[in-house]
Amino acid sequence: MKKIAVVLAGNGVYDGSEIHEATLTLLAIARKGAQYQCFAPNVDQAHVVNHLTGEEMPEKRNVLVEAARIARGDIKPLSEYKAKDFDAIVFPGGFGAAKNLCTFAFDGENCTVNPDVEKAVRETVTAEKPIGALCISPVILAKVLGDVKVTIGQDEGTLQSIEKMGGVHEITSHGQIVTDKKYKVVTTPCYMLEASIDQIADGAENVVGKILEMA
Amino acid sequence: MKKIAVVLAGNGVYDGSEIHEATLTLLAIARKGAQYQCFAPNVDQAHVVNHLTGEEMPEKRNVLVEAARIARGDIKPLSEYKAKDFDAIVFPGGFGAAKNLCTFAFDGENCTVNPDVEKAVRETVTAEKPIGALCISPVILAKVLGDVKVTIGQDEGTLQSIEKMGGVHEITSHGQIVTDKKYKVVTTPCYMLEASIDQIADGAENVVGKILEMA
Repeated sequence: MKKIAVVLAGNGVYDGSEIHEATLTLLAIARKGAQYQCFAPNVDQAHVVNHLTGEEMPEKRNVLVEAARIARGDIKPLSEYKAKDFDAIVFPGGFGAAKNLCTFAFDGENCTVNPDVEKAVRETVTAEKPIGALCISPVILAKVLGDVKVTIGQDEGTLQSIEKMGGVHEITSHGQIVTDKKYKVVTTPCYMLEASIDQIADGAENVVGKILEMA
Repeated sequence: MKKIAVVLAGNGVYDGSEIHEATLTLLAIARKGAQYQCFAPNVDQAHVVNHLTGEEMPEKRNVLVEAARIARGDIKPLSEYKAKDFDAIVFPGGFGAAKNLCTFAFDGENCTVNPDVEKAVRETVTAEKPIGALCISPVILAKVLGDVKVTIGQDEGTLQSIEKMGGVHEITSHGQIVTDKKYKVVTTPCYMLEASIDQIADGAENVVGKILEMA
């Protein structure tokens, strides 16, 4: 049975992992007969956002502890990820990917990437194993890898930043994937487009299907 | 297009809504061509649990604010729910259903039910519209309605409490549903059994399919 690592970034679209994208990635893995193990970096969130009002809350929350909610407690620190133990790795989206896994939401193309995230990406590429990324997460891959072909959908500002980081961007619509054969990177826009939850399921299924095929 | 109200209880299996059950209920509604609107009571959580360690955290969190993470901000206070505006209502599970929507996790059959939750259940029954409930949520319906036929799977202690509250319990396995025709109540065990995420999707699809059929 193939085994996929899923990297979470907290729990909630505005400051963590987008919950539908994360959950539907896990569902796609299970429905395609593979196993998953969740990971998250053991760091404080960049900030905490009240998802009812959109305002920042005067709190501290830990990315690993909050991501454990999506994983029902079965989650490991990302520092423990080893590419040799998995057939592929996937990054669901949500602002947490651009706030906690890297600083793209604050710094654009001048962002920095969390060291555990960068190590996981580089080690997986070196092991020639596939990487999936949903929504905004492809920016992490562009920052780490440079000349990788990805999609985040159609957002002009984001795709320009991806190109400034050395990446190649392809426009896509709901559920479509872009595959970079050199790096074995598969991406899809999800909620980077105005989307419904069933379109998110389509995108997650297509990314997971493709990385399992390449694994 | 039929419209279903989804009642959340926070965000995370141990102190809120079980995230997979909630998300997969929303997915089932969308895939069956219906619409959803999320609701949650505007009250503090009974407590906050660290989902990595299982220990209580010295924090306060609000059920509506945390549930907004699952709903991507599009959620209303449960006090605003009106049965006349919807074709059906669904309660996903998670400990939050038994800690924040009612006190079953602490008080068993002697539990009390949040007034907005009780009103929503009674008003929906009076309007002769269907109610779905996943996982532990059927205990709320047994407490409010009494002689309702439900399932929570096979857990001996819980099913005895349901019978003490006047309910009738039927043993079920993964994805199976029990339908009470008098009250139009449809229930399924989900994570009240040791289950995988694809089995949760099956349960959610079967409940949503049945309530849409009865709506």
